[in-house]
Formats: sequence, structure tokens, C-alpha cells
Amino acid sequence: MHEFKITARDPKTAARCGLLKLSHGEARTPCYMPVGTQASVKALSPEDVSACGSEILLANTYHLMLRPGAELIQKAGGLHVFMHWSKPILTDSGGFQVFSLADLRRITENGVQFQSHLDGRRWEMTPESSTLLQHKIGADIIMAFDECIPYPSPEDYVDQSVERTTRWAGRCLQVHRQSGRAGAQALYGIVQGSSFPHWREKSAKQLLALDFPGYAIGGVSVGEPQEMIYGVVEMTVQHLPVNKPRYLMGVGKPEDIWECVERGIDLFDCVLPTRIARNGTALTRMGRIILKNAQYSEDFTPLDPRCGCECCRNYTKAYLRHLFQAEELLVLRLVSLHNLHFMNEMTAIIRRAIVENRFLEAKEEFLKSYKR
Amino acid sequence: MHEFKITARDPKTAARCGLLKLSHGEARTPCYMPVGTQASVKALSPEDVSACGSEILLANTYHLMLRPGAELIQKAGGLHVFMHWSKPILTDSGGFQVFSLADLRRITENGVQFQSHLDGRRWEMTPESSTLLQHKIGADIIMAFDECIPYPSPEDYVDQSVERTTRWAGRCLQVHRQSGRAGAQALYGIVQGSSFPHWREKSAKQLLALDFPGYAIGGVSVGEPQEMIYGVVEMTVQHLPVNKPRYLMGVGKPEDIWECVERGIDLFDCVLPTRIARNGTALTRMGRIILKNAQYSEDFTPLDPRCGCECCRNYTKAYLRHLFQAEELLVLRLVSLHNLHFMNEMTAIIRRAIVENRFLEAKEEFLKSYKR
Repeated sequence: MHEFKITARDPKTAARCGLLKLSHGEARTPCYMPVGTQASVKALSPEDVSACGSEILLANTYHLMLRPGAELIQKAGGLHVFMHWSKPILTDSGGFQVFSLADLRRITENGVQFQSHLDGRRWEMTPESSTLLQHKIGADIIMAFDECIPYPSPEDYVDQSVERTTRWAGRCLQVHRQSGRAGAQALYGIVQGSSFPHWREKSAKQLLALDFPGYAIGGVSVGEPQEMIYGVVEMTVQHLPVNKPRYLMGVGKPEDIWECVERGIDLFDCVLPTRIARNGTALTRMGRIILKNAQYSEDFTPLDPRCGCECCRNYTKAYLRHLFQAEELLVLRLVSLHNLHFMNEMTAIIRRAIVENRFLEAKEEFLKSYKR
Repeated sequence: MHEFKITARDPKTAARCGLLKLSHGEARTPCYMPVGTQASVKALSPEDVSACGSEILLANTYHLMLRPGAELIQKAGGLHVFMHWSKPILTDSGGFQVFSLADLRRITENGVQFQSHLDGRRWEMTPESSTLLQHKIGADIIMAFDECIPYPSPEDYVDQSVERTTRWAGRCLQVHRQSGRAGAQALYGIVQGSSFPHWREKSAKQLLALDFPGYAIGGVSVGEPQEMIYGVVEMTVQHLPVNKPRYLMGVGKPEDIWECVERGIDLFDCVLPTRIARNGTALTRMGRIILKNAQYSEDFTPLDPRCGCECCRNYTKAYLRHLFQAEELLVLRLVSLHNLHFMNEMTAIIRRAIVENRFLEAKEEFLKSYKR
């Protein structure tokens, strides 16, 4: 199932709150989705992810296709059963990884031939095969197979690519509708078009004609300057329907989420919070804490005394720093827990602020403390 | 505080059940203590360790002295507060690591000079300094500083070393009694003597004369043949008082625990269950499971369907194998959890069997299934 209801709107910006009802439960938006690339949010158990407040997570079709294989996941009863996560899941189409990780890519109208980054094995991914893989994996939201081009790309290539991505989206939709899976899994379209307003507009309009239940903005976080992301969001969102969920792929950092919620985005995913956790960096309301810094060696206070996560309830910076210096695995889990909790608390603050008609004030407050 | 009460005896062997009351709580014996070398049982949180049923854990003075330093732990409020573990802790004296890990050792009557294995920094450890370090760390049970000699060692060196270990034990006891810490922390003596019955007897008798509240058997698991451990336990236990706890240091594997409980041992510690977990090997009633083996790739059953640990309640072998193959951190925690739960379940079975006067039958049952 897939229902999206807008529950509150900020009067001064495009920010809105929504409730997304999916086959495995509900997710309140704006929402940050942690990334469980290989059927695991790195260093965390599903219980941990749930305890941090996450209501939906993302997994990567490309990685799961290579290992352990979509067939194995299907045999296990689908990804929810396989990884023991009973709440909603979104899978990407594999497009982004095929264009960023795989070797020896060859793009044809049919799809993309490439070699696995793990073992060099040859694969072909097409709109149909990506969709069928995502059916086997069984996420609540699945994504159309798109071409994700680098930044910068020449305008004539962007044109060709946008047209092909639309044709591919149509093929995804067709195989999805024929499969009988459309009731259980919702297929979203992905708007491309690099940083060009007219190609973003064209891509959005072509996809809207296909009538997806939700739309993603792809082709961001691919090497362009930071602020350009906000521009791409602005130039794209204006062409998207108001009543459908909007997902900004691969973004974002805490400040990006505020900026893009302001511009009308509902869903985010990003590896940053868990990745920097494993480098010993914690996200807090007061900015980042880099645990290896000597200043924390005798700091017997939590990462954030006002945080209610398992890490902050039980452990001091001095202990976390010791674990990090001593290369103890526990620190990877504790800081990942904290950072994920932080992201979920932050989106909860955003949702509350929208309901209370004070989004911009809340944003200013947050960024003042966070960027101090 | 330190009280030890024997609560049941097996009529056919030297196996016994006991209750050890310490400053931070009680531990039922026979008991396996997980090893939290650097103030963390690797890959597990204290909550995990507690959920697995552990009532006491071990930490290593040598490692903590080097990093983060005993003074820092003292400033944090002691090791219990620092690592957020409120139950009993035992620290070793540093002796074993000084003799197995440190570089450029020089032994004098005063103590041992050595270089840190981490950074080459020069240290000296003496009976007095080891005891004072353990006071700062604040464990419930602390150990006398001993010389831990390799196997084999020439008999005349064993003689010298046993005599010196006794003199060092006396110095530890003196500084401990003068410190005022003897009410809060119990100091155990360590019997040495390599594999020679007469030196083991001499060491035990000399230490008994000093009247420690508990006795450890040291100098085992230092390269000798497996079965020799059982012989050393037999030749030593007969000289130890019946009413005091007996701790076999650095042992053991599941089968070792059965064999040595039979011979009168109460306390064990060993890194094996958590170390092999990190290599993807699980301990079960039916023997070891090596997750990387292809036979588990589509095995959608838990490690042990009768096990109640978090890992077996929620995850299949196929998923654990996938995590291991994909180098996902979560698997290190899950298998460590399972193995620690297994060790605690096994010692619970041992205690029940002793109470029910069926220790040898239970041992045969266990080993038949485990070694099949």
C-alpha cells in the first residue's frame, strides 16, 4: 500500500509535514532514512535502528544483487524477514551504484552492462531487471532505474540522458504494473537533468505524465558545489505535484536537511551520520565532536547531556575517546547510535516546528548552535 | 567485601557450586568471566554482557595502565563507572601480559622493567605498583603480581621463580592491607610452579601461609599440551583450601571448563568465545559453526534453535553468513553475544547438574553432543 497525506504546511516556506502509509507501517515526514547498504545499517542492529527512532530505512539493490543475491533474499522471505526489520524499507534501483561503483560500464538503450566492483563478474542491468530484483527484495518503496550522470555533464548529453531515463522509467512502470506487485510496493520515478532548469523541468514533466505515486530528485551529491543542490531542489520541486512525496536522494547533512525541507523535500537518505560515526565523529546540537581530539580525554560528560540515546545515557566522552583510541568495536556502534538518534531528533524538531508555524525560527536556532 | 559460600558439592568429583559475594554483587560459581581487556568486552556493550547472563567480568591491568591509564580511570570514578558496568570485576595483575606482550623485559627482585608493546615507552612494574594500579582501577577482585614463566622451563628456574613469586605475593598483600582497600577489594594469590607437582605444592603452601581470600592457578595455557592443564589443576587443587574460591587463569574452552570444574575449579576466564566470534565461529551445543562455510548460505535457521540469545531469537545462519562475507560489523556483535550466552548457559547447566548430583552424566551428555 502507499498513501501520503500532508498533515501540516509551513505558511512561509515550502516545508510540509506528511504521513506516509506503506505496507510495513507508517513514516512521518520530513524523514531521514538511514542507509542499510548490504542489509545492515553499519554497526547497528535493527533493534538499535528502531530504538533511535527510525521508521524507514534504505537498502541498495546493486549491493544486494551482488551479495547475497536477490534470489537468496526472496528465498529468505524478503528483505524484511532476512534482516529482521519489520518497518518500511526503500530500495534504490541500482542506478547510482552502477554509475559510481561498477567498472567498464557500457550504456545502451536496453540498459547498462558493467563489471561487479567486488569480483569483476559481468552483469547487465535494465529497467526490467532492476524492477524485478526490487520485487524479489520486497521493499515498500522501490525506485525506477535511471541514468545518474556526473557533474558537470555537457548539455546535449544531459538532454539525451533525460530522454532515456524517461523511457526507462516507463519500462519500469510497465513491468511493475504487470507484476501484480504494485499493491504491495510503490514505484517512484527519479527526476534527472543535472543543474539545468529546463532539463529538470522536462524530466519532471515527462515523469509526471507517467503518474508515479512519488518522485525523487536524483543526480545530486555527484560532485557539484554544495549550494547547487539547493538550486536543483528549487528548480525541480516547482514542477512536482504538491500531494505526492518528494525524496532527495543521497542528501543530507544536518544543514542540508533544513535547507531542503524548506524547499519542499519530504524524504532524505545519507550515509554521512553512520560513516562519520565510524571515524569517531559525533553530531550534536552544538556541532561535531571529533573524539580523537585530546580535549576529550578527561571529559566525563556525555556527547550531549540533553540527548536521550543509549550512548549519551551511559557513556562519557572520555570513555568513548578511549574506546576509539584503543580501536574497540563498541565505539563504532555507540557513536552510530548517537548520530542516528541525533538525525531522528532533528527531523522530529523540524516536524514540530512546521506544525507550530515556526519553521524558519527553528531553523535559525538550530543552525546558530550547530555551526557555532 | 568478599564472601564465598559453597552451596553444593558433587559426591563423585571435586566439582562444587558456590556463591561469591563481592562489593558490586554476587556471582554464582562455577563461572566463566568474559574478558574486557581494554575496559570493553570486544564488540559488546555492558548491557549486552549482562543480557548474556554474565555476573562478573575481567579486565587487564597491563592494558589499562598503558591506555587510558589507571589515573584516568580513577578520576572517572573507577572502572565500574568508567565503562558503565555495575556488577563485579576482576583485574589481573599485569604479570601475564608483562611476560607475554611487553618487549625487552628485565626481571629483578624488585620487579620487572619492560617496554610497552604499543609505543616502546619504558615501564617498571613491581608488586607494589601493580597493587596500587589495581586500587586505582577498583575491581572487586585483584590479583597478586607474579612471574608467569613459559612452558617448558628448567626446573631450577621454576624453583627460583616460585620463591620470588611468593616474596612478591607477600609484598602485594602488605601494600594491600596498608592501603585500607582490603574491605572493598579482595586480593587473590597466584600459584605457579610450571608442570612440576613439588613446585606447585611448594607454591601453594607458601601462599596459603600468607592467607589470601582466594587462590588462582597461574602459568597455564602458556604453550603446554592441552591435557597437561588438567594435570596441573589436579596437582594444585589438592593443596588449596576447600572453602576458598579457585580461579584457573586464561582457561578455557567449553570442554576445558567441564574438565576443570570436575577437578575443583570455580572461576574461569578466556578470550576464546569472543575471539572466535570475530572470526565468524559460533559455539553451540552441537559443536562449532564456521559461518563462512558455504553450507550455511541458504540455512534459514538460527545458530541454535534452542538458544534464547538475541542472535538466535532474531537472525538466521544465512543472514549471519551474509554479514560475515560482506564484512558487516553487526555480525561481530551478534556472534559474540551468542558465544557469551552459550558459555553462561553452559556454566548454568554445570551448576544445575552439581546441585542435582549428576555432574558426570551431564558432562558426558554435553561432550557427546559438542564433540560429535
